[in-house]
Order: sequence, then C-alpha cells, then structure tokens
Amino acid sequence: MLKGKMVIGQSGGPTAVINQSLVGAILAAREQGVITGILGARHGIAGIMKEDFIDLSTQPLSQLEEIAATPAAALGSVRLKPGKEECEKVFEVFKKNDVRFFFYVGGNDSAETAHIISEMAKEANYDFCTVHIPKTIDNDLRVTDHCPGFASAARFVALAFMGDDRDNAALSGVKINVVMGRDAGFLTAASALARQEEGDGPHLIYVPERTFSTEQFKKDVAEKIQQYGRCVVAVSEGVVDAEGHPIATSGEKDSHGNLQLSGTGALGDALSAIVKQALPKARVRADTFGYLQRSFPTIVSEVDAKEAREVGFFAVKHAATTAENGSVAIRRLSNVPYRSEYFMTPLSTVAREATSLSDAYISSKGNDVTQAWLDYIRPLVGDLPKIGRF
Amino acid sequence: MLKGKMVIGQSGGPTAVINQSLVGAILAAREQGVITGILGARHGIAGIMKEDFIDLSTQPLSQLEEIAATPAAALGSVRLKPGKEECEKVFEVFKKNDVRFFFYVGGNDSAETAHIISEMAKEANYDFCTVHIPKTIDNDLRVTDHCPGFASAARFVALAFMGDDRDNAALSGVKINVVMGRDAGFLTAASALARQEEGDGPHLIYVPERTFSTEQFKKDVAEKIQQYGRCVVAVSEGVVDAEGHPIATSGEKDSHGNLQLSGTGALGDALSAIVKQALPKARVRADTFGYLQRSFPTIVSEVDAKEAREVGFFAVKHAATTAENGSVAIRRLSNVPYRSEYFMTPLSTVAREATSLSDAYISSKGNDVTQAWLDYIRPLVGDLPKIGRF
Repeated sequence: MLKGKMVIGQSGGPTAVINQSLVGAILAAREQGVITGILGARHGIAGIMKEDFIDLSTQPLSQLEEIAATPAAALGSVRLKPGKEECEKVFEVFKKNDVRFFFYVGGNDSAETAHIISEMAKEANYDFCTVHIPKTIDNDLRVTDHCPGFASAARFVALAFMGDDRDNAALSGVKINVVMGRDAGFLTAASALARQEEGDGPHLIYVPERTFSTEQFKKDVAEKIQQYGRCVVAVSEGVVDAEGHPIATSGEKDSHGNLQLSGTGALGDALSAIVKQALPKARVRADTFGYLQRSFPTIVSEVDAKEAREVGFFAVKHAATTAENGSVAIRRLSNVPYRSEYFMTPLSTVAREATSLSDAYISSKGNDVTQAWLDYIRPLVGDLPKIGRF
Repeated sequence: MLKGKMVIGQSGGPTAVINQSLVGAILAAREQGVITGILGARHGIAGIMKEDFIDLSTQPLSQLEEIAATPAAALGSVRLKPGKEECEKVFEVFKKNDVRFFFYVGGNDSAETAHIISEMAKEANYDFCTVHIPKTIDNDLRVTDHCPGFASAARFVALAFMGDDRDNAALSGVKINVVMGRDAGFLTAASALARQEEGDGPHLIYVPERTFSTEQFKKDVAEKIQQYGRCVVAVSEGVVDAEGHPIATSGEKDSHGNLQLSGTGALGDALSAIVKQALPKARVRADTFGYLQRSFPTIVSEVDAKEAREVGFFAVKHAATTAENGSVAIRRLSNVPYRSEYFMTPLSTVAREATSLSDAYISSKGNDVTQAWLDYIRPLVGDLPKIGRF
C-alpha cells in the first residue's frame, strides 16, 4: 500500500471556489492513515521547486472554512507551464521529501504537468500517485460534464447581465459586454440566463466557436435596435475574424505566448467604435467584465461550491485507497433534481487539449444560444433573483 | 390644503436602490387622501412632455416589492437636462392634468429641474409642491450626509477589490482598477474597505480631488512593488493632470457635453501602458468596473436599501402634509449603532452644484484615504465577508 507525504498545489487563473477543492483535499487527507504529511505548495510547481511548503495538517476547521469561502488561490497560483527540466526538479524534491501523492488543482495545462510527473515516476520506478483536481472558469476540460469554478463565474456573468440589461432598458442604447473565454464560449453563453421575459437582453451572444464578422455584427445590432429600441451584446474576449485574427488586442503576449485578452478594454472599445460608425445616433457603451468574473465574492453558485469541495475530497480519498493516477471528473446524473457523481479519468484524456462549446448549444445564426444550452447550465448556476417590472 | 394628482419620475444614472425610493413614494402616496392619482412618468421629464404615464395606484404589494429589489430605474430614466422651453412644456402638462405634486428621483441636475418647475408654478400662482428625492452612486449631493444608491455601489466596489486583491496575491503583478466618479472620489475611496490585514490592497487610491501625476504614479507603484511584491491600484475615472486634462478618454462627449469616461477601457489601458513602460518586467492588468457598479443585483447594502425606501416615503408624506418644496436629506445621528433621520432642505441648496470628497478623507500624500473616511463609510456599506487565509 502506497504511503508517504502528499503535496497539493493550485495553478492557473484562480476561481471563486478553487479553495473549496483545496479544503476538501485537506480534510480527506487528514482522515487517511497512508498520508503521513500534508504539504501545501506556495504558487504551485514554482513553490515545489523551491521547497516552499506550508504544513496543512494543523489548521482548525473554522480557518479552513473561511479559506474555502474566499475566492482565488489561498496557496498562491502560478502560470508556469514547466519544461522537462523543471518537471525533473519537481520530481527530485518529491523523492527527497518522501512525497508519494501529488494533487494539482488546475486546468488542462496543470493536468499535463501532473501527467509528465507521473510518467517520470513510472520510469524511475518510484511508487507515486498523481491526481489532477479540475478547476477552470472556462469550463473547457474534456471528459467532465463541467468544471468546478465555471458555475460561479457563470453566475457572476448572469447577474451582471441581469442588472446591466435593466440599466440599458432604463437608458436605451447599445451596450457591449466583453466576457472572459479565449477559446471557449461557455462563460459568454452563460449571459443568456439573464433573460426572464421576451425582449430582455442579452440580445446578441457571440462566442469564439463561430467566426466574428464585423459586417454581420453591425447588421445584427441594427436589427435588434429596430426590434427593441436597444441592444445588449455579450461577446467573448476570444472572438476572431475569418482569418483567425483577434478583432482587437493590446498586442501584449502572456507567459504562454498567447495574446493578452483579459485585463484590457481594447476589444470592447473597438466594437464600440464599429457600432458608433455604423449607427452614429446610438448611445454606445462597452464594459469588459475582466477579473471580477473569477474572483467576486458572495455570489458563488451553491452547486459549484459543493462540487468543488467534493472533487477535492474525492481526489485524495481515491488516491489513498487505490494509488491510481488520474483526473477527477463529474458525471451528471439528473437535471431535476440536479444530481451528479465523481469518477476518475486518465490524465492523458484531460491533459493538453481543451474542449469548447458544442454545436448543439449555439444557434443556427451563430449569434445566440439554444434551449439545450439553458437546460445544461441552469441547474449549475442555480436560482437567480426575479426581475421586478411594471 | 393642497390636493390633486402626483407625478413621480426617475432621472440620471440608475442605481441598485432607486426603485426602493420609487416604491417608498408609491406606498406613502396610497395613504394620503390629498393625493388623488399616482402617475409614473416613463423616462422622467421626457415622458412627462409626452404624457407617457402609468397608473401606480393599483399594483399589488408583491409586485412593488419585486420592483424595489430590482436594480435600475423601473420607470425608465433620462439624461435630459431641460431648458426653459422644456420646463414650460412639463408645467403645461401638469396644469392640464391637475397635477399638484411632483417627485423627481435623481441627482443635482434633477434637483435643478425640480427647482425650475417649482419657480414656474410660483410665478404662475399655481398651487404646487415639488420634492426632489436624492439618488446617486457618486455621493456628491450637497447638504445630505450621504446619497441613497452610493452605499450599494460602494459595497460592489469593496467586494470587487476584496476578491481581486486575493487574485492579485495569488498571481502577483500590478492591477489597476478604474472606478466610476467623474468629479468626486467617494466610490473610488470605498475600495479601501477591501483591506482586512496589513498588505491587503488596494495599495494606492487616486481620486479626482487630487491632481494625478503620471510621474508620481510610477514612483508610487514601484514603491509598493518593493514593499509587497505586487500592487493593486484604485483610480477614479475622473482623475486629471495638472492642466486639468483627463489622462485618457475615448474622445466622445455625452449629452451634457461632458467627455465620456465610463463605458470605455481607455484610462485603464493608458495607465497600464505607463506602468509597463516604467516596469517592463511587471505583469500589468487593468479592469474598468463600468456599469456593473450601479446595477449589479444581490449585493445591495441593507442600510442603503432601507434609507432609499424611507426617503421616498418621507418625501411624499412630507409633501402631502406640508405642501413645502424641497429636497430630502439624510442626517447621521450615530455611527455605533448606525442611526439616521430625514429632513427637508431647500431645492436651491442641492440643485446645480455638487460636492466632493472632503480633505479630511484624503491622505496627506494624496494616494490613499484616512481613518475618518473608513469611519464614515463602514456603517453605510455594512459587514463584509471575512477573508480566509493561511
């Protein structure tokens, strides 16, 4: 039976419930006799390489519950996608400290890191178990029905559109809201939950799974203004034109070599300018929701918080019991009432490549979502307040 | 005794609790025998000129409560600052419909409109009572201790900075958040409520009451990075340089002839570029909180919701009882426990000119707030969730 210390780290963009997974894992670990030490890595693998650990075996439950309810990564996060050398360094630290279990909370890049390290351990005949704990507001991991962190971000987006659509109804005009999601439109599509009656916005939804045509965009907006006297638009930060080029960016690249999309108002401002030119009389405004989508406190989805806690717990319990590598995934059992269960999937099925919004969720015109999408997302986000009106 | 119909309208930028004031006024009006009809004007004075009214005497309480809890102006709002001709048109409509009471929910421009119409009635010897019901997320009305709508927007800003500061702590860098407030820094200053322990952000707070020097800004950011390894900045959309020029705008003007500041990411992007140039290694991001600050549902301040309801109720009851013109104001009676009362102030003391953040609330260096500010704002915003951490 595998026995030794465990290391847990958090990676990638924080979410509102990533600390729920951390706390779930800690609480499970404290119950497992085979886990002889619980080490939290500061800033993911960057901290592991420096042996920057904190002991997670002693904090009182009250403190852990406060941490679980706090957005963003309490251990610190990291954007580092390690090369072979860095993975070897991590593995050296593990061997040196008799670490036998490694849990990495993150997206597909983190699953890839976990996968590489698990392969190294196998080659070295070092008894070792690596489990990836899924989290991403982008909801773009393969295999799982949905990703912890997504539903809370989706709830933020839905609430934001609900309020903003009322604002737009009070002072008519064109309002463009840019939503996170480089390659996948899940979060942008969540804006549709803001609608409660015919005529409610968002009136147009653009996701990166469909080519963005500025000509069609102008026509779409003009048509909605004709119909409703106003137009609220949800657009993913990742939309690209027919040549695959972003509509507008700040030009800066992040540490993965990707163009920076979040943390700048460039796309919103560019789309505003397009509408102002086409419809000179319209009052046009753009907001870029930015980092609040993944970190805003107090609006967490109940299902998301519960599942994030449980995937962390499941990961550690499963590892301690079976010593099997893998990534935790969620299987939806029913929609009404909503029920789900957890299972393990091989790291290779989650690592590297991500997924995106299925065709069944995008309207035929490519500027809205379908009923199937609403059926999928509604139970995850939970009840929303009713809009009062005359 | 003055007797006749009343008209109520909502004006200017919506808030999360402006409908509380509307509902408070409706409920009070239904109790007043001298008020013979309750007319809601669609889109403020724009609707009055077109006689676009809805009867507010029949809606069930359950519907009114739903409306009260919904952000933005349920009657519709308007950005029109009327000239003499338009005020005369409004007055004609009032006379024609035997309207004897006019309630206008809005900021200083709305108080000015109410004032002009009340003067017209006086000149025409038309028995008439006009009461301004204060609302503004900017908190910039004179006389009153604070303005309904402000505390809920402040709560949004405080929560946003709480979460975003944890995000920044997890993935260090420079984060610039642009907050609403053209001429007054109240809302930007509210960001300070996000701090719970030494080292928490925002680490720098820039309000429009102080000249913004890009040179000093670069030095300030570098100093905070030295100290904390990261830096979260709160900056008002209205900051200007020593010559009184905005640091960056989209160049567009609104219907009042003011440069458009909200609904564009221009300032955040300009400040990002300044920091990136000065500190090329830093990860720099900017978010512009935008319209969510005034419309986001579910995070309303309890004190704000209660007071907004009560100023509406007070306005109508006072008008029906005394027929006196005026603007409702709030007097703070104690901080612990928080208590306040309402009183009337002449329209001329609120109309036209606005106020701004007092010197006592701004730190000597001009890049932070004081304890006096925190004492002022904390009871209005209410308890915030505790940040959990290791």
